Amino acid sequence: MRRNDSTLPSIEFEDEFVDGLRDIFERRIVFNQFLQFTVISIRHDRVIGRMFHRPELVGHFSYNRLHGGVICAALDAMGGLAVMAAIGARHMDEPPSRRLSRFGRLGTIDIRTDFLRQATGNYFDLVGEIVRLGSRLASSRMEFRGADGGLLAIGCGSFVVS
Amino acid sequence: MRRNDSTLPSIEFEDEFVDGLRDIFERRIVFNQFLQFTVISIRHDRVIGRMFHRPELVGHFSYNRLHGGVICAALDAMGGLAVMAAIGARHMDEPPSRRLSRFGRLGTIDIRTDFLRQATGNYFDLVGEIVRLGSRLASSRMEFRGADGGLLAIGCGSFVVS
Amino acid sequence: MRRNDSTLPSIEFEDEFVDGLRDIFERRIVFNQFLQFTVISIRHDRVIGRMFHRPELVGHFSYNRLHGGVICAALDAMGGLAVMAAIGARHMDEPPSRRLSRFGRLGTIDIRTDFLRQATGNYFDLVGEIVRLGSRLASSRMEFRGADGGLLAIGCGSFVVS
Amino acid sequence: MRRNDSTLPSIEFEDEFVDGLRDIFERRIVFNQFLQFTVISIRHDRVIGRMFHRPELVGHFSYNRLHGGVICAALDAMGGLAVMAAIGARHMDEPPSRRLSRFGRLGTIDIRTDFLRQATGNYFDLVGEIVRLGSRLASSRMEFRGADGGLLAIGCGSFVVS
Repeated sequence: MRRNDSTLPSIEFEDEFVDGLRDIFERRIVFNQFLQFTVISIRHDRVIGRMFHRPELVGHFSYNRLHGGVICAALDAMGGLAVMAAIGARHMDEPPSRRLSRFGRLGTIDIRTDFLRQATGNYFDLVGEIVRLGSRLASSRMEFRGADGGLLAIGCGSFVVS
Repeated sequence: MRRNDSTLPSIEFEDEFVDGLRDIFERRIVFNQFLQFTVISIRHDRVIGRMFHRPELVGHFSYNRLHGGVICAALDAMGGLAVMAAIGARHMDEPPSRRLSRFGRLGTIDIRTDFLRQATGNYFDLVGEIVRLGSRLASSRMEFRGADGGLLAIGCGSFVVS
Repeated sequence: MRRNDSTLPSIEFEDEFVDGLRDIFERRIVFNQFLQFTVISIRHDRVIGRMFHRPELVGHFSYNRLHGGVICAALDAMGGLAVMAAIGARHMDEPPSRRLSRFGRLGTIDIRTDFLRQATGNYFDLVGEIVRLGSRLASSRMEFRGADGGLLAIGCGSFVVS
Repeated sequence: MRRNDSTLPSIEFEDEFVDGLRDIFERRIVFNQFLQFTVISIRHDRVIGRMFHRPELVGHFSYNRLHGGVICAALDAMGGLAVMAAIGARHMDEPPSRRLSRFGRLGTIDIRTDFLRQATGNYFDLVGEIVRLGSRLASSRMEFRGADGGLLAIGCGSFVVS
């Protein structure tokens, strides 16, 4: 798909903001701790994460595949992170702590996950991209890729942001 | 919504089949063990489950709400269980073990979750209902309800069954 | 699925409100005129409509099936109508004309359609049901049934209502 | 989003195949005739179409916006066209007429549309991209853009192809 037509200028986030978002997504969201979800990079229009395969995350024990619900959970997290980054970029006039507090007013309205291929391998790369940030609503698209770069699942979600 | 127009006759499953499905969903699906997902009842057109709130399943630590990804995972499990029950009902001529082996050929194609209200409370009731079972594809609708019966989330999914 | 846990009391709408909503959905929404979408009944938690099969609405000319896009369009209309009825029920203190003006602030955020069976037959019955009405967001479930009552498609949608 | 990891080699379709697909999508799918949907280009992993705004396609008559159902219908068509192109690319050993006959076995399982911005303007550009083509199932992503290139809606769909 073509680059998204974000009207947001390219923005360099301060370390304080990036570290704060990482802290929210890696530690304060308790279930993400269990997923051992790691934030790799945060840009105003695109965020990247990674998670490692672990026996606890498997679906049926006969197959060493990630459970579909784990994929849904990871894509939901990436979609929310992408929205938070876009909100942060819109409010660069605010101090980082104030921007981070906006997270408390973010909620997922609905999310769709398409399972494309079996999720095996040691780790998985996650991408979240903002497709629209309005004053009250936001939309994002997400990708779940294998260690070889292959697309394993895609998702899209709607969020309420005010 | 009106009762689904399943053309399947009402069927009484044998204990062996019910226990087998419960074993798959509660124990062999490793991630469901973590969710502590419990199967309550299995009918040919409707399955019911329950899960309990636990600190590990929380989203942001400031709020005692279930993580959205946990809800997605539970609804995916319920959708799959509903499809398995419907497949079982269609193949009552087969011994239970053979019907249970059909689970290995079940896969989620895609799933949508709508988050309606905050998921708080001690436990949650889950419903999965088959809306269509074809020879290759199946569709199900799912509900996630609070201890007070309130609807907290709904889902729908498409499955491949061959 | 169980009855929705709407907290709205059962409400009897005035003819003026019902006729006004019908006028919006059957005539003022231009594309619905083309679909020849007819409103059958409007209740606070459930709306019913009907549309007739016509050659212009067919998909591939070799098969006399309704085009999938027509089904999506009809389900979108039913979802919106269900939300409008629920909004109307919440504002019974306002005169009907004021309640009807709230339609201008209703928008579909996203919609999912599951195609279950081929849509053939002379006419189709449509059901829209509200699953949640909040102050800013609403969710609805929709059904598309054949003349024999068989479920041909289901949908669900999220709406912004302020 | 990154380019899709299609493993299909880049393929040059014969005019006979391209003209045949165009004929199916522009003329034989009766409802597409009403939409005046035009196929612009067909590649093995990406198809492009266009449609013009017309008074009959409007939602509420007070606003000159395309009806949401029209957008759903157009995205459904683009998703199907993308799948057909990918199927064609996989069967280049068959004569074009045989490849085109595979269209009869294509069906949409489900589709999601996210409405991002009001669809106004004289014409709209449509993109369909294959994200997975398996032996029985396919997935595609779609975009609906305004005359200025702005993203107005996105969609994703699952298809059965055998």
